[in-house]
Amino acid sequence: MSKKKVNKVEHINLHEIKDPSFLKDLSFKQLDILADDIRKEIIRCTAKNGGHLSSNLGVVELTIAIEHFFDLSKDKLIFDVGHQCYTHKILTGRPLDNLRQTNGISGFQKIDESVYDCFDAGHSSTSISVADGFAIARDLKGEDYQVIALIGDGSIPSGLAFEGLNNIASGNHKVVIILNDNGMSISKPVGALSKIFGRISTGAGYNRIKYGYRRAIAHGKIGKKIYNFTLRIKNWLKRHLTAPNIFTDLGFAYIGPVDGHDIKKLEKAFKRVQNTEKSVVVHVCTTKGKGYEPAENDNSGSWHGVAPFKVESGAPVKPTTKETWSKFFADLSLIEMEKHENAFLISPATLVGAEMDKVLKRFPKRGLDVGIAEEHAATLSGGLSHSGLHPIVSIYSTFMQRAYDEISHDLARTKSNATILVDRAGLVGFDGETHQGIYDSAYLASIPNVVISMPSNRDEAEYLYEESFNNHGVFVIRYPRDICEQKSIKSNYSFGKWYLIKESKAKKVAVIAVGPLLRELEALIEKENIDCTLYNALFINPVDEDALRSLLNYDKIVIYDAYSTQGGLVSLVTLKLSTLKFKGLISAHCVPNVFVKQASIKEQLESFGLLPEQIIADLE
Amino acid sequence: MSKKKVNKVEHINLHEIKDPSFLKDLSFKQLDILADDIRKEIIRCTAKNGGHLSSNLGVVELTIAIEHFFDLSKDKLIFDVGHQCYTHKILTGRPLDNLRQTNGISGFQKIDESVYDCFDAGHSSTSISVADGFAIARDLKGEDYQVIALIGDGSIPSGLAFEGLNNIASGNHKVVIILNDNGMSISKPVGALSKIFGRISTGAGYNRIKYGYRRAIAHGKIGKKIYNFTLRIKNWLKRHLTAPNIFTDLGFAYIGPVDGHDIKKLEKAFKRVQNTEKSVVVHVCTTKGKGYEPAENDNSGSWHGVAPFKVESGAPVKPTTKETWSKFFADLSLIEMEKHENAFLISPATLVGAEMDKVLKRFPKRGLDVGIAEEHAATLSGGLSHSGLHPIVSIYSTFMQRAYDEISHDLARTKSNATILVDRAGLVGFDGETHQGIYDSAYLASIPNVVISMPSNRDEAEYLYEESFNNHGVFVIRYPRDICEQKSIKSNYSFGKWYLIKESKAKKVAVIAVGPLLRELEALIEKENIDCTLYNALFINPVDEDALRSLLNYDKIVIYDAYSTQGGLVSLVTLKLSTLKFKGLISAHCVPNVFVKQASIKEQLESFGLLPEQIIADLE
Repeated sequence: MSKKKVNKVEHINLHEIKDPSFLKDLSFKQLDILADDIRKEIIRCTAKNGGHLSSNLGVVELTIAIEHFFDLSKDKLIFDVGHQCYTHKILTGRPLDNLRQTNGISGFQKIDESVYDCFDAGHSSTSISVADGFAIARDLKGEDYQVIALIGDGSIPSGLAFEGLNNIASGNHKVVIILNDNGMSISKPVGALSKIFGRISTGAGYNRIKYGYRRAIAHGKIGKKIYNFTLRIKNWLKRHLTAPNIFTDLGFAYIGPVDGHDIKKLEKAFKRVQNTEKSVVVHVCTTKGKGYEPAENDNSGSWHGVAPFKVESGAPVKPTTKETWSKFFADLSLIEMEKHENAFLISPATLVGAEMDKVLKRFPKRGLDVGIAEEHAATLSGGLSHSGLHPIVSIYSTFMQRAYDEISHDLARTKSNATILVDRAGLVGFDGETHQGIYDSAYLASIPNVVISMPSNRDEAEYLYEESFNNHGVFVIRYPRDICEQKSIKSNYSFGKWYLIKESKAKKVAVIAVGPLLRELEALIEKENIDCTLYNALFINPVDEDALRSLLNYDKIVIYDAYSTQGGLVSLVTLKLSTLKFKGLISAHCVPNVFVKQASIKEQLESFGLLPEQIIADLE
Repeated sequence: MSKKKVNKVEHINLHEIKDPSFLKDLSFKQLDILADDIRKEIIRCTAKNGGHLSSNLGVVELTIAIEHFFDLSKDKLIFDVGHQCYTHKILTGRPLDNLRQTNGISGFQKIDESVYDCFDAGHSSTSISVADGFAIARDLKGEDYQVIALIGDGSIPSGLAFEGLNNIASGNHKVVIILNDNGMSISKPVGALSKIFGRISTGAGYNRIKYGYRRAIAHGKIGKKIYNFTLRIKNWLKRHLTAPNIFTDLGFAYIGPVDGHDIKKLEKAFKRVQNTEKSVVVHVCTTKGKGYEPAENDNSGSWHGVAPFKVESGAPVKPTTKETWSKFFADLSLIEMEKHENAFLISPATLVGAEMDKVLKRFPKRGLDVGIAEEHAATLSGGLSHSGLHPIVSIYSTFMQRAYDEISHDLARTKSNATILVDRAGLVGFDGETHQGIYDSAYLASIPNVVISMPSNRDEAEYLYEESFNNHGVFVIRYPRDICEQKSIKSNYSFGKWYLIKESKAKKVAVIAVGPLLRELEALIEKENIDCTLYNALFINPVDEDALRSLLNYDKIVIYDAYSTQGGLVSLVTLKLSTLKFKGLISAHCVPNVFVKQASIKEQLESFGLLPEQIIADLE
C-alpha cells in the first residue's frame, strides 16, 4: 500500500495493510476513522469465526495509539494473554478472515506469525516479566528501544504479575506498563486491587483538596508562613495522594487515568512516558465490548469468548440445545453443594466459562471467585480442608498448571480432602497450543496421593463426584470441552476399580480406555462384533492392579486415552504391566507430547490417529 | 508441669513444658527470662543437630508474645515456611533434642506432630492463603477464633502471598498477618517491597510533619478556619501518610512497626489487633540471629541453615574439605559466563545455598537474584532468551515446582533457549518431605521439548553445561545435594546419546543408570566381576532410542535411578521399550512416589533398596 494513497482516501483498505508504518502519515481524524473500520472488521470476523470479542473491541483506539506513537520496527509491544491483539494483527498485515481456523492466524499474539510479535502468550499475567527480560537485555547490550507491556486489570492482580512488578520496580531497566482497566477482567474483577483501580479512576479527592487549599492560603495573613511550612505537605500530597496506589508505592511513575478511546489523550500520556526515566504505569480506562451493544451491556463475561454469531441480533449461528460437560458438572455441583453442607466452591476467574456462576448465585456464601489466582485457589483449599470444609475447585486443565506446587505441597502432602473439577481436559480445538488440557494427567501423576479420574458418561460423573467426598484426599475429576451425551448406562462402581464393560471369549485382546470417546469405541466394537475385552479406566491414577492382573495372559493390551499425553494412563498402565511381568504386546494410543496447534478437536484427534474408527483397526 | 511451680521458680524446665497454657501465669519479667532460656536451648540443639538458626533466634520473643497473648487452644497460628517454629515447638511440649533426626521432630511446623500445628509448610509464602481458608471456614461455621499468619519480609513479596493478600483484603474474613521484618529474608531481601519496608521502619516523616503542623496552626489567626478545612487533609494524611504502603492501599489495617524483641510492646500491638474489625498487618521488626553473635553479624545468609557447629567458635563440627555439587556447578558457571558473553544468571533467593553468590559478584550486571519469585524467574527468562541473551536459571528442584506453568508456557512452548541448573535433585535428607527433589524428572517430562540431563561425574557436568548453549531449547541439568567426587573419567559425549560404560559378553543383562550413584554401582560391578552391559543415561529425556534398540535381545534390563520417582527415567525407558516391543524383563529401581520423611540420604536410599550394594543382587 503506497503511503500517498493513504493521505488521499479516508477509509483504508484493511486487507492492504502490510505493516504499521502507514500510521505515521495519518491525522487524528483519520486514525479515528480507521478505528471505526477496524472495530467493524473485528465484529464481522469474530461473528464468522468465533473468538474473543469484548476484549478486542475495548482496545482498538489504544492499539492504534500505541502503534502510531511508538515505533514497532524497534520497540517491543507485549500483549498480556494476547486475546486482545486483533487490532494489532490488522495493523501488522494479518487480516482476520481466517482467524482461529485450521492453518489460519492465531487468536493470540504469536512469535512465529510476525516480526511484530516479539513474544506470545495465552495464559495470563506473563507480560510484565517478559518485558523485564527484554528491558534487561536491551540495557545490557546497550540497545535503544522501548518495552511496552499491555496488561488488563484482571491479569495484573495475579501472583506472577506482582512478582514482575516487584522486580521491575527494584531494578533500573525501564519498562512501560499500560494497564488496560475495563473494570471487568473476564467478568467482574475480584480482589482488593480492583477496588483500588476504582478509587483512582473515580476519586477526584486530591483535586478538590488541592484547589480548596490554594484558595484558603491566598486569603490568610500568615498564609505564606504556613505555605512555606506546608510545602513539604504538598509534596507529600503530590507524591502520595495523587495516586495512593500500589504502583507508586512500589516505585513506579504513574500516569493516568487516561480515556482509552481518545487517541489524542493517549498519545499525550505516551509523551509523558518518554520523558520519564523510571519504569512507568499508564492507567488507561476502556470500555469492554465498545461499539457493539450486546458486548458493551454484558456484565457476565458472555461476550468474552464467543462462538460464531449473527451481528444484527447477537444470536449464535448454531444454537445448540445440547449440553456441555461444563453445564452438566455445574448442575451436578448444585446437587452436591445441597447434599454436603461443608462443600465450598472455588473458581479462579472461570466461573462463567465453567458455567459455575449459577452455583455461586445459589450459594453465595459457600463459594468464591478468587480471580486469576490459581495458586491461591489451591493453597486456600488446604486451609479450608483442615478447618472442616470440603473445597471444590473448578479449574481449567491448562490453568491448573499454575498451581502444580500448591496442589503438591499444600493439598496432597497435607492430606487435605478436596474435589478438583478439571474442565477442558484433553484437546481444546481452536483455543490452540496455549490452552491444551492434555498434560494434567501426566503432571498430576507425578504428585503422590492424587486420585485422577475421568467419567465416560453422566452416571459415572455422578458417582465420581459423590465418591470424592469420601476422604480420598485430593480427588481430581477431568472432563472435556465437549458435548455431554444424554445416553448413560448405570453400573456398579467402587473406588479405584475399573469397570468391565465387555469380556472377550478368546481372551486375546483387551482394551483399556477412558473418557467419553470410550463409549464411541464401545459402540463400534459392538457394531463390528469384535471379540475383545473392554475396561473402562475411569480411575486413571492409581490404576486398577486387579483388572490388569486379569489380563496378564492376553496377547495384546490396547490402551486408548485420547485425552492425555503418554505421561497419563498410558505410562501408568505400561509401568504396572511391566511390574506384573506382562509378556504380551502393549499398543498405546494417546496424544503425542507436543504443543498442539489450533484446529477442530476432530481434526486434532484424526491427525493423531485417535478417532475411535482409527483405533478399531488395532483391535483385530 | 503444675502451674504453681511456674510462679515460684524463675527458670522453667523447658523439657517439662506440655502446652503453652503455663504462659498465662508468667509476668513479663518471667517471659523475658524464658526467652533467654529458649534462645540458649535453640543454639544448643541447632549446634548439635544442625537446622535453621538465624530465623529461629529472631522470633523467640515474638513467638512467646503470640502464645502468651492469644489462646492457641483455639486460635490458629500458621507459620510461613515453618523453619522459624523452634520456640513454638518448645512451648508446645516438643523439646529440640532430636530435632531433624530420623524419627525425631521435624524442623518445620507439622500437622501430624501436634494439635498446636494447625497446618504446615516448608515452601514459602503459603501462610496467608492458608489463613484465609481458616478464616472463611470459621465465619461460615459461626466459630470464634483468631487466625494468625506469621510471615517474613522475604516471603511476602512472592506471587502466592500477594494473591492471598489481594483476596483477604477484598473479603470480610478477618485474618491477622504478622510481618516479621528482619530486613534479611534468607540473605539480603530483593525487590521493591523490601525498600518499602525500609521506608516505613525508618521514615518518621509523617510524625515530623504532624507535630510541626500542629504548632503552626496553634499560632495562626485564621488557623482555625484552615484547621477546619484541612481536617480532611489530616484524615487523608492519617490514612495515607502514616503508612503509605501496599497493605493500607489494599485495605488492610496496619499496625507498626513494633520492636519484635519487646514482649510488652508486642502485646500492646496485639491488643489493637483485637479492637480492629478488618484484617490487619502487624509489622514487627526483628534481628535475625539475635543473641548469637556470628549469626547476628551474618549478612550473607550463611547462618540461615547450618550443619552442626561449635557454639564457642561458630566453627563446623565436621569441617569438610570435600566439594559439593553446588560448589562445583558454581565454579563451572564462572567459566561458562566467561565463555558465553550472552549468558545471564538468575536465582530465586538461593544464591548462597547454591553457592552462586560468587558468580554474581564476578559478573554483577550479568545476573539477578529475583527473590522468592520462581515464576518470575522462568517467565523473565523467556523474555531474555527472545532478546538474545541465554538465561541460566539456578534453582532447587523442589522450588522449581512453582514455575511448572511458566517453564511450559513461557519457555518450552516459545522455544526459548535456557539452561536450568537444578540443584538438590534427588533425595535431600534431613530437610524432609517438603524439600525432596525427586519429582522434577517426572513433571518436567510432562512438558514437551524439555531436555532433562544428569551428570554422573565432573567431566559429564562440564560437557552438559557447555552443550546447553547449543540451541537445544530448555536444557535441564540436575545435580544432587551431595559431595561431588574428584575422580572423573573423560568420554566422548554427544547430544541425546547415552554412554556405553561397559558391554556384556553374554548380552543377557543390561543396566541403564543415571547420576553419581551409577559410578558406585560401576565400581561394584567391576569388583564383583559381573558380566553385564552398563549404560550411562546422562540424558533422561528424551531417552536414547538407539541405545535401547541395541538391548532388545537381552533377557533383562535393569533401570537404576536413585534420584527420581517412577515418572522419570523409569517411565520413559519402560514406555520406549514397550514401543520397541522388548520381550524381556524390565526391573526398575527408583524412589517410590511418596512424600519422603526426614532421615539421612543414605537411610532413605537404603529403606527403598536403592543403595548400589542393594542393586547389585538384581544383576545376576
